[in-house]
Amino acid sequence: MHILVLGGAGMVGRKFIERLARDGELGGKTVSKVTAQDVVAAHAPAATPFIFDAVVSDMSIEGEAEVLIASRPDLIVHLAAIVSGEAEADFDKGYRINLDGTRHLFEAIRKVGGGYKPRVVFTSSIAVFGAPFHDKIEDEFFTTPLTSYGTQKAIGELLLADYSRRGFFDGVGIRLPTVCVRPGTPNKAASGFFSNIIREPLNGIDAVLPVSDQVRHWHASPRSAVGFLVHAATMDTGAIGPRRTLTMPGYSCTVAEQIEALRKVAGEGVVARIKRVPDPVIDGIVAGWPRNFNPQRALQLGFKAESSFEEIIRVHIEDELHGTFVK
Amino acid sequence: MHILVLGGAGMVGRKFIERLARDGELGGKTVSKVTAQDVVAAHAPAATPFIFDAVVSDMSIEGEAEVLIASRPDLIVHLAAIVSGEAEADFDKGYRINLDGTRHLFEAIRKVGGGYKPRVVFTSSIAVFGAPFHDKIEDEFFTTPLTSYGTQKAIGELLLADYSRRGFFDGVGIRLPTVCVRPGTPNKAASGFFSNIIREPLNGIDAVLPVSDQVRHWHASPRSAVGFLVHAATMDTGAIGPRRTLTMPGYSCTVAEQIEALRKVAGEGVVARIKRVPDPVIDGIVAGWPRNFNPQRALQLGFKAESSFEEIIRVHIEDELHGTFVK
Repeated sequence: MHILVLGGAGMVGRKFIERLARDGELGGKTVSKVTAQDVVAAHAPAATPFIFDAVVSDMSIEGEAEVLIASRPDLIVHLAAIVSGEAEADFDKGYRINLDGTRHLFEAIRKVGGGYKPRVVFTSSIAVFGAPFHDKIEDEFFTTPLTSYGTQKAIGELLLADYSRRGFFDGVGIRLPTVCVRPGTPNKAASGFFSNIIREPLNGIDAVLPVSDQVRHWHASPRSAVGFLVHAATMDTGAIGPRRTLTMPGYSCTVAEQIEALRKVAGEGVVARIKRVPDPVIDGIVAGWPRNFNPQRALQLGFKAESSFEEIIRVHIEDELHGTFVK
Repeated sequence: MHILVLGGAGMVGRKFIERLARDGELGGKTVSKVTAQDVVAAHAPAATPFIFDAVVSDMSIEGEAEVLIASRPDLIVHLAAIVSGEAEADFDKGYRINLDGTRHLFEAIRKVGGGYKPRVVFTSSIAVFGAPFHDKIEDEFFTTPLTSYGTQKAIGELLLADYSRRGFFDGVGIRLPTVCVRPGTPNKAASGFFSNIIREPLNGIDAVLPVSDQVRHWHASPRSAVGFLVHAATMDTGAIGPRRTLTMPGYSCTVAEQIEALRKVAGEGVVARIKRVPDPVIDGIVAGWPRNFNPQRALQLGFKAESSFEEIIRVHIEDELHGTFVK
């Protein structure tokens, strides 16, 4: 099978392609080719049992999506997006990439016709929800985003459902939890500290905690995020019905519980590298974020995430640190 | 004040403009000009205390919205849409008019800049909801449309909220109940019978009831629909917050209750003109429609509808039949 990954140079895209390279198959079918599209060139995994093609293009430009779809990939994983902060700072760019880009993709698929009906996996976000909400957000809660990014993702969900209902493709939307522990270097995203306070201390480096340790949030590991993509790509969509986007499972815990988990897994010396430096701005932003979900439908449909924060930390140590850390 | 009505030749647009002509003012401000845009020429009310300008244009064409917004109307009432059946039959046309047209309008307003921030009233629909739903749909229930029309309206709601949040305009979205009794001649809309079985018998003409009289639905009169527009155009939006679209109040009743109300208002002879001719196709379509709502927010914010179906019939007799009917 031929798999097209849009946003293939990003963290989740890269990890998904690495998993395909490791498995060699998806849902029992041999992967013959992976096309990784992004605005920068995606690197090929170390060893690939399939043809790997990195395409640099901008899907928001009329005609670019058609070029990608011309080869009729069997599976399209759409991870490409301008992130929340940038979509808020640059209104035009956010709508161009996140809305027009998605619509161009869906239209390009529709216009192939002739019985072409690929699986399309669309990554949405819990940013489709806007405060005030219940402590535990149910599957039937309404989407009232408070960012342009969340608005664009919610629109993508609606389009995905309508194009699937009309039979133009077979879509599954997945709302990812905050991916934690995010590998790499600390970034300035307001959510960065959730990962920083685990990743940096395990590397022997101090990390700043800018919020109260009573802040509660919704997490899943990068490994789980890849697992969601694999399941969304291979599941029987007959069971989903017309409500095509699902809130993915995750693990809800407070920062205090994150720290306690780190203590259990890595010890007091590692925890001591977390420095509390309250930042009222970040505290204010985070106060408007969802804290917990009751993702019944996704669980019933077989999506799985970690069931403790210790497990999330162990996954990070296994997948990113070769099983070891700085004591 | 200058008011721009998009879709001004339609039934609700026409009645809204007639009310403006009668009142001469809106929210205490004298109406100096009304521009009625549509794809066909809107007729001027019999007597207007303001300048009336009918513009024939297609907002889905790039640049047309800019022309309409160039004069900086103080209030924009956006009623223009391809209806549900046509949006389902013609995928491209539905998205072009209902989505691109709305986006062009919003973008045209945004691009004026220089402190221009008009009130924008956007008419949405209960078609944003898709079965299965609760018997009484709450304000926080999610929108999972089962038609392209409902999808396009739900996207319009999201854009309205984001453009309002960003300060580009001051938007209020209103989800209209089924407007009943709809004046004019019977049409082939699946929902037509809700009005036909009242309007035609009052005119001395037989009408077909194609569904069980146990079918429950959600109604408001054309007069109430105009009242919603007036209130949405003049209310203090400070009280709305970022959740800009509201499910309008209405009256929920079964067809049997509609018929009973007609009996009370007009007598047995009129009711005898309703002929029961079951149509399983229409029965099937109607089974997927919302039956009842709990529109708490709209009620708290001062929107009002009829509180009985008898009242809905009396409004029809007053507004459309000069107070009389064929016994």
